[in-house]
Order: sequence, then C-alpha cells, then structure tokens
Amino acid sequence: MLIVEIEKILRQAGEIILNADYSEIDANEKDGHANFVTNYDRKVQSFLKNELLKLEKDASFIGEEGEMGNINMQGLTFIVDPIDGTTNFIKNLKHSAISVGVLKDGEPYIGCVYNPYLNEMFGAQKGLGSFVSGKKIHVSNKPLNEGLVIFGTSPYYGEYKDLTFKSAYEYYNKALDIRRSGSAALDLCYVAAGRYELFFEYCLSPWDYAAASIIITEAGGVIRRIDNKELRFDEPCGIIAHNGLCE
Amino acid sequence: MLIVEIEKILRQAGEIILNADYSEIDANEKDGHANFVTNYDRKVQSFLKNELLKLEKDASFIGEEGEMGNINMQGLTFIVDPIDGTTNFIKNLKHSAISVGVLKDGEPYIGCVYNPYLNEMFGAQKGLGSFVSGKKIHVSNKPLNEGLVIFGTSPYYGEYKDLTFKSAYEYYNKALDIRRSGSAALDLCYVAAGRYELFFEYCLSPWDYAAASIIITEAGGVIRRIDNKELRFDEPCGIIAHNGLCE
Repeated sequence: MLIVEIEKILRQAGEIILNADYSEIDANEKDGHANFVTNYDRKVQSFLKNELLKLEKDASFIGEEGEMGNINMQGLTFIVDPIDGTTNFIKNLKHSAISVGVLKDGEPYIGCVYNPYLNEMFGAQKGLGSFVSGKKIHVSNKPLNEGLVIFGTSPYYGEYKDLTFKSAYEYYNKALDIRRSGSAALDLCYVAAGRYELFFEYCLSPWDYAAASIIITEAGGVIRRIDNKELRFDEPCGIIAHNGLCE
Repeated sequence: MLIVEIEKILRQAGEIILNADYSEIDANEKDGHANFVTNYDRKVQSFLKNELLKLEKDASFIGEEGEMGNINMQGLTFIVDPIDGTTNFIKNLKHSAISVGVLKDGEPYIGCVYNPYLNEMFGAQKGLGSFVSGKKIHVSNKPLNEGLVIFGTSPYYGEYKDLTFKSAYEYYNKALDIRRSGSAALDLCYVAAGRYELFFEYCLSPWDYAAASIIITEAGGVIRRIDNKELRFDEPCGIIAHNGLCE
C-alpha cells in the first residue's frame, strides 16, 4: 500500500530531524517576517522528493522549499512540508512534523503527518479512516464551551494580526482556553484526534494543510476555507477546522 | 544526593501518567473556570508525598491537590505539582510535567521538572547550575525581536483576561511570535533551556513555579513577580521570566 510506503519514508526523514546537530543549523529568513528556512528543511525535502518519486515516478511534487510552478494536478501529486514548524525546530521546542499529502486528480487521497519527537504517525486514506500510530482516531464530541481552541498567528502576513488576536480573544471567551503551538499540521491532526476542538489560522499554504485535511475529514471533522471558497491546494488561504460542533 | 533521589521518584511518577487509562479519567472542576483535577493528579500527588517524605521525614509538604495550611518554612519544604498542565493531560496533548521544588529555610534550593512524554528531566540545585537530562543548559542570548514569547492565560482568574491579551499582542509586535502551551512549569524550564526568550502569566500558584524558579536562575535567567514584590512561595502571584535581555 502506498500509505505504508510513505510512512516508512517519513520515519527515515524523522531520523534526520532527531539527529540534527544544533551547532550547524543554518537559518535564513525567506519572504515574510519570521519565515525561516534551514539547511535541514532543504535536506529533508530533498530526501523526501527522491524517495517519494521512486514510489510513483510519474507523480508531481510540490514542496515548501521550492517553486509552486505550474503543476499538473492530473494523476498523483505529492504536497510536502519537510519541517512544519521550522521556528519550533530552530528553537528546539520538539514540536514539529513532516507532512506529506497525496492528491489524486487534484482531490485529497492520502495524508501522513509524522512527529518524530513523540514518534506519532498520523495518517488517513480516502474512505479508510484516520489513525495515529495504527490506532483509529475520531474528532472530539465536546462543544466549544468544553473545548480547547488552537490557532496560528500567520506570522509572515502582518495584515492578519489584528483579526487573529480579535478571534483568539473571542474564542477564549467561548471555550475552556486557547493554545498556540507553531505547527499547523500538528494542530490539525490534534483536532482530528479529538485533542483540540477547533483550529483557525488566517493564512496558510497548501503544504501546511494538504496532508492534514484528509486526516480531519476521515476522522469525522470539518475543514474549510475561512472565505468559504472551495478548499484548494494551489494557493494560500485561511483555514478553520473543527469537530463539527463548534460553529 | 537529594536531587538524584528526587529525579528517580519523578521518573516513577511519570510512569503513572504515561500509563493512564483514558477510559477511567475522572475530571472535576475545582475553584475557578477550567481548573480541573483528576484522579491521576491525586494518585501522583499521593505517590510523591509518600516517597519524598521517606527521603526527608522532617520536611514540610505543600501540594497542589491539598490545603496550603500553615506551613513552617524552616528546614526543607517540598512544593509539588503532581500534574502541571492538567487540562493538557485530560485532552491527551502530551505536554504536561511533574514539578517538585525544595526550599531550604524558605529559599529555593532544588528544582526538578519532568516531562514524561519526551523523557526530559529539568533539574537545578543552588550553586550547581541547571540541566536537562544531564546536559547543562543556559538561557538564550537572543534579544526579544529574535525571540519567542510564551504566556499563560490565568484561565481560573477571569479578571486578568484583558491584560493578558493586551500583553500578548504587545509582545507579538516586539518578538518573532508567541506560544501558549498550557504548562507553566515547562514554559519556565524552556526559558531556562534557551528555547523561549520570555514567559509571563498574571496569576500562578507557588507549585507552578517553585521548582522552575531555581532552574531559571541557575541557568542565568531572571524570574520575578510582575508586581515587583519579592518572590514568595506561600501565595499566588504574577510571574515574568526571561533571559536577562528582554526588559
């Protein structure tokens, strides 16, 4: 099965992250405030591209550390974030993940998100449900007032700052409490696993949510664009995801 | 050495948390919104009290799950949070810690904070430095504009809500980004380890910061009350901690 092969590759990529030598991390800012890339993001992406295209040589490949370009969405497309939570990685917060989504003819087909620090593998395939490390997961059955809200601050996009804090404050008033982790892919997987009730962030890129989107829906949750347009994988957008009981 | 014996006890207590059966967690609200206690908080505290007082039978014991009472601060005092991050524990976020501080004649002497999920043991003893799992740690040398700010929302104390969000927004404008984890003891240890640059929370209890306070100072950092009064261990207060470069 393709998903099993992808998970094997993610575990190997996780070793690169776990064995990172902090004396030789080379971090540079890309476009946007606090938008970092390191030599390890590039190393993991290069490893993933090489290994994933061995599995499916005709597939397209979109990675965070490269151009989106003009991708043909026919057939299989890998959408990859080599280190989701790069700032967390640089700061050694031990809360980052490797995210690989697979689209089939442009539609979510497989999603795998691996947190090497906790050795947690989140995975889903269309029609087969969502799992963490082999155990079936489902979104929470709690309403918002018994729930936790996790959010992203879209730090690379200053224009969403006021809206983000306004929403965080409003949700804080309606929920038990808020959290902010720095890894959108893990936040979304945690919603799928029933650990958080709702996630929002006003601007994300497709590699942040491509894998997690199917993990959410196969776990019985809801993921949509904040602007209510159809979810797409070729442009940035705002994302809200929840257990189906929080809107 | 006392600190080595305490660390052994914390590792055993960590097993209780790691082996928790989520089908039998019994969570109840104590005083204040979202202030939960579970059967596991009580179980871990009871284990710690029993084992710690075997090491020092004349010591006093203050635990989160009990009365502060009228404690004599002469000699040794254990100040214990059996599960720092109880809401995280209930939600299975895998980010909670066991915290044991030791005061000698009322002054910080030893601190141990153990995160069983990542198997990270933070520890410090007066004059001997701070360590994580045996490796010496030091606060970060980054200024605030290259730093991460982690904060607590004091969820049990609604009166600090507006102030908390105002400060979080202001720090967001000055720093790289913000985080909110739900475990103050781990937040403070992460400041000590140079992972975050600054922590603040407008109301904490002594068991939240008793152990971590010496881990911060022995790592070269600063911890103080927000109201600038002398740090004490017998009443709640607001706490700010940083690497010495962020005020």
